[in-house]
Parts: sequence; C-alpha cells; structure tokens
Amino acid sequence: MGPGPSNPYPEVIEAFTRPVMGHLDGVFLELLDETCDRLRAVFRTDNALTFPVSGTGSAGMEAAFVNVISEGQTVVVGVNGVFGERMCDVAARCDANVVRVDADWGTPLDPQRILDAHPAPAVIAVVHAETSTGVRNDLAELGSAKGDALLLADCVTSLGGIDVRLDDWGVDIAYSGTQKCLGVPPGLAPVSVSARAMERFRCRPQSWYFDMGMIADYVAARGARAYHHTAPISMIYALHAGLGVVLDEGLEAAHRRHQHCGDLLQAGLEARGLTLVPPAEARLPQLTSVRVPESRLPRGMGEADVRRMLLDRYGIEIGGGLGPWAGQCWRIGSMGHTARRRNVTLVLAALDEVLD
Amino acid sequence: MGPGPSNPYPEVIEAFTRPVMGHLDGVFLELLDETCDRLRAVFRTDNALTFPVSGTGSAGMEAAFVNVISEGQTVVVGVNGVFGERMCDVAARCDANVVRVDADWGTPLDPQRILDAHPAPAVIAVVHAETSTGVRNDLAELGSAKGDALLLADCVTSLGGIDVRLDDWGVDIAYSGTQKCLGVPPGLAPVSVSARAMERFRCRPQSWYFDMGMIADYVAARGARAYHHTAPISMIYALHAGLGVVLDEGLEAAHRRHQHCGDLLQAGLEARGLTLVPPAEARLPQLTSVRVPESRLPRGMGEADVRRMLLDRYGIEIGGGLGPWAGQCWRIGSMGHTARRRNVTLVLAALDEVLD
Repeated sequence: MGPGPSNPYPEVIEAFTRPVMGHLDGVFLELLDETCDRLRAVFRTDNALTFPVSGTGSAGMEAAFVNVISEGQTVVVGVNGVFGERMCDVAARCDANVVRVDADWGTPLDPQRILDAHPAPAVIAVVHAETSTGVRNDLAELGSAKGDALLLADCVTSLGGIDVRLDDWGVDIAYSGTQKCLGVPPGLAPVSVSARAMERFRCRPQSWYFDMGMIADYVAARGARAYHHTAPISMIYALHAGLGVVLDEGLEAAHRRHQHCGDLLQAGLEARGLTLVPPAEARLPQLTSVRVPESRLPRGMGEADVRRMLLDRYGIEIGGGLGPWAGQCWRIGSMGHTARRRNVTLVLAALDEVLD
Repeated sequence: MGPGPSNPYPEVIEAFTRPVMGHLDGVFLELLDETCDRLRAVFRTDNALTFPVSGTGSAGMEAAFVNVISEGQTVVVGVNGVFGERMCDVAARCDANVVRVDADWGTPLDPQRILDAHPAPAVIAVVHAETSTGVRNDLAELGSAKGDALLLADCVTSLGGIDVRLDDWGVDIAYSGTQKCLGVPPGLAPVSVSARAMERFRCRPQSWYFDMGMIADYVAARGARAYHHTAPISMIYALHAGLGVVLDEGLEAAHRRHQHCGDLLQAGLEARGLTLVPPAEARLPQLTSVRVPESRLPRGMGEADVRRMLLDRYGIEIGGGLGPWAGQCWRIGSMGHTARRRNVTLVLAALDEVLD
C-alpha cells in the first residue's frame, strides 16, 4: 500500500507465463495492437499514436518532452511536488526555456496562473496526480485555454484510478506507468500523442531510444512494421492482461472502486485523529498523504520504525515522504488490485495496533 | 530460433510469479544487489557500477553514449552491420564528431584500422557480436591499444554465449540485452562501467532517464538509496533467475553449449550445401547467417514464405536479413535456453522438409 508499485492482478501474473514470441511475429503484433486499443480506451482517446514506451513511467516523461521540444522553446511547468520538479529537469536537458509556476506542496496548481505565466509557450506541462503529495491538478481548464501550446500531462498515478479524458480535455501528450492503478508491475510507460503534437515532432530528437517518429513505424504502422528496438514482450503480455481486467470490470466501475477505497481510508484516518495533507477538493482517492502523528509514535520510535513494523508484522508497505516531506508524512496507496476494502480495513486496524 | 528473443529458461518464467515488492524494500534491494553481482560474474568484471538499465538493449546503447560524450568530442565507431550503424546515429545525437570505420557486412572489423582512424578519440565503440550478420569483432586488441580513449562495447548478443572479459580486455563501458544468450525475455539492458569511465561522466547529460550518475546513487549506493525511477521489479526477478541458471551451469559450460550447438548447426547447413556468410574465424556460434538458397526454395515461394512455413508447421521462428541483407540471408539463433541439440536437429530436419 505504498505509492506504487501496487499489487498486480492475478491475470497479469499469469500472462507472464506465456511463451515469448518474436517482436515481428504476427500473433504478437496482434496482441500489441490490442494493447494499444485498450490503452486508447483507458486514456479515452482516439489518438493513433498510443502505445507503451519500453521503460518505466519516467521514460514516458522523457519520451514526451524530447520529441516536441527544441532548444530555446518555452515550456511552462506547474510544480507542486517531485514530479513537477522532474519535468523541469527533463525539459532543461532539452535546452528549453523553462518557466516554473510553483504552488505549495500539498495544494493544487492554479490553472490561471499557469496560463498567465507566458504569452506563447510551446508546451504547458502539468502532473495530473502528484505521487509525492496525493494532490490532483486540473487539466481540463488548461486544455480549453492552451491556445497554440501543446498540453503535456503526467498521468502516471491517475490512469485507471480516476477520470482521465485526453480528447475531451485537450491533452496533447500524456504518459503513465503500469505499476499504479493499472495493476501491472513497473516496466512500461503508456503514452498517447495527438495528431497536433505529432506534427511538431522533431526530426532526430536527442534520444534515439525515445524517438517516437521512428517508434511509430513499428507500433502504429498500417502496413509493414519497421524494426526499431526489440519490444519487451513479456511486459506487454502483462500490460495487455492488466488492461483487460480493468476494462472487464469497466473503467467507471474501477474508478468507483478506487474512490470507495480512498474514501474509506481517508475517513478512517480522520476518525483516528490523523491529519490529511491536501485540501478535500484536491485529494486523490488512490494516494493519501497523511501527516505523521509525532505524538502517537511508540516511545523511542521514529516514523520509519512504524513503517518497518507494518511491513514486518503485516507485510504492508506504506510510503514515507519525499524531498521536503521526508519524515513529515506517510503516503498510503490504494491502487489497482490493492484497491480492495479488505486492504483498507487491515491497514487502519494495523495502524491502531502500532500507534499508541 | 530467430536472432532474439530466445526462449527463456523455465526458472525465469517462475520468477515472474513472485510477489511484487517496492523498489526501496530491503528484500528487493538484496535481490538487486545479487543481480548486479551475477552480472559482474558474466561480464567478468569488478566494476562497481554494473546493473540492469530499465529498458531493452538499445536503451543500454543510449545510456552508454550519453553519459560520456560531450558536444564535439570524437567517437570512432566500427561499422559492419545494423548495430554499428545505430551507434553512429546515437553518437551523432550527442553531437559527437563521429568517425566511421566501415568493413563489409559479414566480415569482421580490422582493429588496426580503427586504432589508426583518429589520433585522440574520446571513445572507440565497437559491436562485439553483430546481430545483423553473425560476425564476431575483436575487442582485446582495441582494449590494449586504446590509449586515452574509452572502449565502449555492444555485448547484446555476446554476453552469456561467448567469452566476454571486460577487465582483461580493457572494455570501459559495455551493455547487453537480456533476450539473447542470458535466456530472459527482452526488457533490461545489463551495463557495466569502469571507474575510469565514471570519472568522465558528464554532469547533467542530455538524458535524465539514463543519467548513470544519478542511477548509481540507487543501484550502487553503499548507504542510503536515492530514489531515481521505479525499478522494473518483475523483470529484475527474471534477470536474477536467468543469471542464476547460467552461473549454476557454469559460465564456461554455457559457452561450450552455445559453441556445440553453433558447430552442429553450421556443419549441418554446410552439409546441406548452404553457404554460411561470415568467414569461419569470425562466425558466432549463437547466431548463424546463411545465404538464402534461391534455387531450392519451393516453387513460387520466396524466402519469407519458407520462414512462415517453419513457423506454421513447426513453431520455429528464424530471422530474415536486415537492411541490405533483406531477402538475401536468414539468421538462425541458438541462444540461451534455445541453445539445445534437440532444437538444432529439429531446425535442420525442418529445413530438409521445407526446401526442395
């Protein structure tokens, strides 16, 4: 129950046991195409270029930036946690002119301040669900007023857990990870790119591995597939299976399950006198940050000792704070297959047992 | 029996079924450390920075180049196949001054010509085992005469199949893939970096995801681990298990098995009147390129039809030629768990049945 990886669905683990096929085998390519179709369904998009990047979520971030940013172009980045910070770092390595719009950690970004930050940015980049704080940032308002800019969104922790509507919201480039609300181990970064963003693809971006123009000739080719790099076959089986579970349950039902578990967890923590960090209207159901109750830690123990006790006694992992929140907060995830009432009930009861 | 992915060892598939742990879980970190130790054993190196990059083999290539090359530095690249070409592309995207030394496809590179190509290159880069042609290039002679240059080697198809001796040969940066002779599905790129190469690491290379200075604080930290990106947990289980199989068999025994299967296959093809492309002294045992016997293809069929018949009738995949060799040659792999006498015997008998 940390901030990810979550527990994978049993169907996902079973998928790992399938025989490995070649990356140009017709049967594998059908499965890859179906995986991309399933990704379009969860991203709620018709984008032709929708596929899993062969790396973890941060590989998706890098792929998103390097293909559309040229030296000196302006990128406005909303920053209210670790992953907004990371976006600034990645954009700076593309030699972008990075314009930061900061909000306090634990509070949502103000879309209007982001829109006002620069008259004509090439890209506006925002994290939808900040894994470091449990805060949801609004995308729709940015998408409707973005003008000529591309809207680039980090959906690592949101996809599959809360509503994500790329086409309705006007998101041009989105990336995610498999190990959060999709219930698949870490290793792939689903991405989706609008036709408008593809028109701005750089020729020969600084990364060969993440060159989406070249990768499109493999993953989204209509006729012959051009080999780019060997696809991570078994991880794609796993993602295909995880998306199947989510879509069999129904995307909205999966969202309701995440919401229900998050509500139970957050109400349970507050009923025990603990303090949730984000304001109610910006809280993610799938990731809850709660202040460490210093006065209730067992005598002589720190917050890390409590996390260790949960792991040792119950096999429950919860996350510590990142960056300035290290030692200050816990991050409790309820994502993917982990988002079950029994897990929420258990972690609350375990905290009862461990805290004074 | 294509040029990779090979069939994974059964122990590898079993490893995929282990419960997913967090990337900062102590039990997982022990397994990661052990995986890195096992990689040191197969790379035959003491390099402290030896770990699996979170991407496929080409991610290893990119990680190798971006961390040590600055704009305008000279990189001498030996090119006798697709992967030498790819190195030129990756180095050029680092704004290197790329000096190519070409040899005909199917013939090995001449180390002396590479050493003579530039008086003071920053990097000399060579593919050890060219997957596109089945040719072995010499590394030891380059390592002993490299001078101040770093020697960078692609060991994607060599590692686990033939002798690789990073420390004895003076290789400074090597990368590989999991899906060839290690018998693990594609998805990770084992890399190893000498202390000498680490001293030349760029501060803030153009890639955040492949920034090995930052990744070292996670994979090779002596004390606290700094989170960089979420490790691909299940793939690391798989690699750990695959390396365990190789080292249990014994690295030299595994090499002998690959050599034995390659010898049987190549003798069997020649006995049938087929022509092997590389000269005998540069042939890889694990990957055999053979000229398509045009005169013996079934009436009205092309070489792709023959490959399709092998796949449909026998479930055997063999590879076609890449680039200029498309339609001209087949590439038959015998790697990892696929390198078994029964597979070699079957593919030869199947060819007997399919060819006129």
